Amino acid sequence: MTTTKSVSIEADKNVPLVRITRDFASTPAQLFRAHTERGLFAQWAGPDGMDNRIDYWDARTGGSWRYVARRDGQEFAFHGSFHEISPERLVQTFTYEGVPDGVALETLWFEDLGGGRTRLHAQSLVDSFEARDAFLGSGMEVGIEQGYAKLDELLASGDV
Amino acid sequence: MTTTKSVSIEADKNVPLVRITRDFASTPAQLFRAHTERGLFAQWAGPDGMDNRIDYWDARTGGSWRYVARRDGQEFAFHGSFHEISPERLVQTFTYEGVPDGVALETLWFEDLGGGRTRLHAQSLVDSFEARDAFLGSGMEVGIEQGYAKLDELLASGDV
Repeated sequence: MTTTKSVSIEADKNVPLVRITRDFASTPAQLFRAHTERGLFAQWAGPDGMDNRIDYWDARTGGSWRYVARRDGQEFAFHGSFHEISPERLVQTFTYEGVPDGVALETLWFEDLGGGRTRLHAQSLVDSFEARDAFLGSGMEVGIEQGYAKLDELLASGDV
Repeated sequence: MTTTKSVSIEADKNVPLVRITRDFASTPAQLFRAHTERGLFAQWAGPDGMDNRIDYWDARTGGSWRYVARRDGQEFAFHGSFHEISPERLVQTFTYEGVPDGVALETLWFEDLGGGRTRLHAQSLVDSFEARDAFLGSGMEVGIEQGYAKLDELLASGDV
């Protein structure tokens, strides 16, 4: 089985939105679990070498979440709300606490490509092009690429 | 004491955002309570003649809310998450269940004008200009204007 390992990160031309797509060797249900189950999410999110400690995680419509990523004595905390958790899509808010006034509205869905492959679609909406371009210029693609590579391994392990 | 009773509803030129401003004869703390306390919010939100039944309401960072507005046998339900509840601002998600795939990210803050007057600033962000213009064309200004007029009366009553 082969998967396209490259992640696509695309800035929308008209609205302050970033779109991410990435194919995985998994079913939609497995990708859903990897994004909503606390113990699974902690294993793959973020760049290499990060240790994620989940502070709280209530993956239901109306629930909320917070986690702290640690590496080399540095801590990076994130929190948000789960606006919608359904098999069709996940809608959640996202704040990096280093920029406490910033907030993104994220939507994720999982497109079944057949043959045990699924395309993850994620979009992240903010309220200005300045905020969107700061996000794109933050080096976030390293964390996204390395995180998804860890997710590939987790899916291959059979633990999801 | 006089207040400017007119509400300003403005579409941003560059991003799919609506900005609302309205002055009230109140302190910022009173406006904060009117927006976050379940029993107060139910008394003023929405157009005239609506009866609001709060289904759930947990006004803390990470909490969530849902209410059903009823008039003449018709029901309109809304729900969302409270991403941030702080004296500085409220950040919440908003879905009208008649359009279940639609979601807005709302931010509200209260500017102290002095002399017992406060300016409410609200912005509502969606992910396309089509969705924003559908919202603007939905007749929502009637509900906003009538709701704020009810809020004027509630504030004048001394119950907030």
